[in-house]
Amino acid sequence: MAEQPVESSMEKIVSLCKRRGFVFQSSEIYGGFNGFWDYGPYGIALKRAIERLWWNYMVESRNNVVGLDSTIICHPKTWKASGHVDRFGDIMCDCKVCKTRFRVDQMPDPATCTNCGSHDLTEPREFNLMMKTYVGPVFDEDHIAYLRAETCQPIFLDFHNIRIATRMQLPFGIAQVGKAFRNEITPRMFTFRSREFSQMEMEFFCADEGSMEWFEYWRDQRWNFYKLLNIDESKLRLAPHDKLAHYAKAAVDIEYQYPFGWGELEGIHHRGTWDMSQHQKFSEQPLEYLDQTTNTRFLPTVVETSVGLDRMTLAVLCNAYDEDRAPTQKEGMEDDVRIVLHFPASVAPVQVAFLPLSKKLNDNAQELQKKFIGRYRTELDVTGNIGKRYRRQDEIGTPFCVTFDFDSLEDNAVTVRERDTMKQDRVPVDGLKAYLDAKIFGE
Amino acid sequence: MAEQPVESSMEKIVSLCKRRGFVFQSSEIYGGFNGFWDYGPYGIALKRAIERLWWNYMVESRNNVVGLDSTIICHPKTWKASGHVDRFGDIMCDCKVCKTRFRVDQMPDPATCTNCGSHDLTEPREFNLMMKTYVGPVFDEDHIAYLRAETCQPIFLDFHNIRIATRMQLPFGIAQVGKAFRNEITPRMFTFRSREFSQMEMEFFCADEGSMEWFEYWRDQRWNFYKLLNIDESKLRLAPHDKLAHYAKAAVDIEYQYPFGWGELEGIHHRGTWDMSQHQKFSEQPLEYLDQTTNTRFLPTVVETSVGLDRMTLAVLCNAYDEDRAPTQKEGMEDDVRIVLHFPASVAPVQVAFLPLSKKLNDNAQELQKKFIGRYRTELDVTGNIGKRYRRQDEIGTPFCVTFDFDSLEDNAVTVRERDTMKQDRVPVDGLKAYLDAKIFGE
Repeated sequence: MAEQPVESSMEKIVSLCKRRGFVFQSSEIYGGFNGFWDYGPYGIALKRAIERLWWNYMVESRNNVVGLDSTIICHPKTWKASGHVDRFGDIMCDCKVCKTRFRVDQMPDPATCTNCGSHDLTEPREFNLMMKTYVGPVFDEDHIAYLRAETCQPIFLDFHNIRIATRMQLPFGIAQVGKAFRNEITPRMFTFRSREFSQMEMEFFCADEGSMEWFEYWRDQRWNFYKLLNIDESKLRLAPHDKLAHYAKAAVDIEYQYPFGWGELEGIHHRGTWDMSQHQKFSEQPLEYLDQTTNTRFLPTVVETSVGLDRMTLAVLCNAYDEDRAPTQKEGMEDDVRIVLHFPASVAPVQVAFLPLSKKLNDNAQELQKKFIGRYRTELDVTGNIGKRYRRQDEIGTPFCVTFDFDSLEDNAVTVRERDTMKQDRVPVDGLKAYLDAKIFGE
Repeated sequence: MAEQPVESSMEKIVSLCKRRGFVFQSSEIYGGFNGFWDYGPYGIALKRAIERLWWNYMVESRNNVVGLDSTIICHPKTWKASGHVDRFGDIMCDCKVCKTRFRVDQMPDPATCTNCGSHDLTEPREFNLMMKTYVGPVFDEDHIAYLRAETCQPIFLDFHNIRIATRMQLPFGIAQVGKAFRNEITPRMFTFRSREFSQMEMEFFCADEGSMEWFEYWRDQRWNFYKLLNIDESKLRLAPHDKLAHYAKAAVDIEYQYPFGWGELEGIHHRGTWDMSQHQKFSEQPLEYLDQTTNTRFLPTVVETSVGLDRMTLAVLCNAYDEDRAPTQKEGMEDDVRIVLHFPASVAPVQVAFLPLSKKLNDNAQELQKKFIGRYRTELDVTGNIGKRYRRQDEIGTPFCVTFDFDSLEDNAVTVRERDTMKQDRVPVDGLKAYLDAKIFGE
């Protein structure tokens, strides 16, 4: 891929995302809403495809992982047990003069604003990142509930219900995808750090003995997943944590080199029995597992894999973004800069675009498209000259454009243009399914 | 289907849902959390499949509808414009003696508790059903935001961004699936009326002229959708609204006869230009559409289709539930009651289960299963005698069980048992894909 200056590369991606309908700022007509992003038509198609790939890889293709879909709002004691109510935030204060906000533990002694030097500061106050709401008729302390700050906690609550219903025995995992919320003080880096985001998490329950082997297994499985997304391996790295939580045996992040620097995509964490012991303590319910082969009871050890779907989607976008040169019809120029997203076909928002060469052929192209609906994600693109349409499809990352021209009426064949090579093949309509299947599914 | 006493039928479904891992009450280990339900492994597989069917039907198979995924929390002015801040709720008061809660407009005059006759009532107060939270560093009036009460409003906010990015021209629709929240005073009827739920909505933007034809078109399209789910047509009805909102030209619900009575599944609403005019007023942004063929500007008219995914999933469950008789191995009995979920194969949580007849054949069955992962939703079921496993698969609605027995080692064939007829076919392994494809995809 061509070298991009770091800053402008991110700006170009953000700009493309808006221009082509991948990502919009939330509530733009109301001046925008900081930390919230909407996925437009191509963005949600991409995000859905990535999520499906994860779900298939983590749940549907395994006999030892099952799915869950818990509510965003659950019993508030959950977050007391998890520690989020007491510890998920910082003590902050504001400078009354320049309005800069500080973490109190990072301030000099005596406390002065490190920005303007003022002593005129607000009283320190706790800033918890959990978003709270009220459930029930009265808006008081007794009715506070929280929007989940992570999707994993409800998995622990449902562990035994799931175990009993499915008759699963250790070791096995429970996976879920869903929204989580954090009232970030400074949301930033586009969709990388936002206040509402989607997580894809899997908690793997096992005995303590052998749990480090499971940790290594899942670290490797998760690393391999990025190959399915064609992520450039030189932009991925494993970053073991320097400091471990007191209950953890091991923790490693998978980081991606975004245009703005290395950022955490995913964490793989050996969490010991911490989560289950906390919920056992706060719920006063026995949460031990009875191992029927050894007839022993113990709290399951947990190995977690936790990834941000928005961060993964952003990594796929950054990884796919490229500029090269392509033929142009502009006067006096043979070629021009082409912006192209090299998505793998499996997650491309549009896998196959159908392009009638002339308006007179719209119906023919649409008739052909119909045969492939349900098999691929398709689009009928009828506006502009064919060169412009190719460029537009390149910008949304469509791997294959099928052009129906006047010759097609005679020879019952179409031109398939491949995004990355820009090469064109003439393919008989009867053989189009086999041709595309081979390219898209590798069948 | 067998006649069920109304009440017990619902109880049986709720019980099956918990027993087999479709739906659990949220936070059970903390005593439960009223109005919130978690989908277990089979429930989420079912719900995902229904959602995918809807998305494919409404978005991917059409050139005039595109997708969106907006945040749950958006700019609070959105809900001022939509009327939810001012009007989405009731004036309530409580009896101080017996704690019954009343809507004030339904109380007798003079106000007495209709339950215990007491005059000792709280002051009337507004009870708005929107759930509120705070976004940003300060928890005051200026930082209130709302969890969306419906998924449609953000569609209106993004209309022009989407139109520009996709170059769509009227008429076209924007669809989205996602969570919505209502602080229901009395959540009830299992997942039918809960406080956190998923909606699948599509807003179709068109000119006023011809908009009633679009209303009728979408009403028919949506009615036809239920055929894909094999919903018993005698339990579906169209219920036109008696009273229309002042801006609406037409409104009709699609209702399903749940065991507890007729309930709204879906609404198809002609909303006129109301939504766009409200957001234009509150945002002070011009939201008119320029028709390039007539060179006129106007606010788009909206036809909405809005369905509750949880309600649809519950309808599919109720529709699928049946009890009949099946052979048993119990002593002195030839047959026994069988509980079975007749899901259509397209949405069954497990489409094909692989059953080794003996533990010695587990690896063989799993080897066979591997060939079909990604193609169907599969499960390897190894525990219990084969009769018990069939019953279990019947209860989770698996249409096809593939049994690998000792003869399979010799003849390279397996027994396929069909859920509804309980008939068994011996099928060569080489022909299994074609056999199952024909049954599941109708190919």
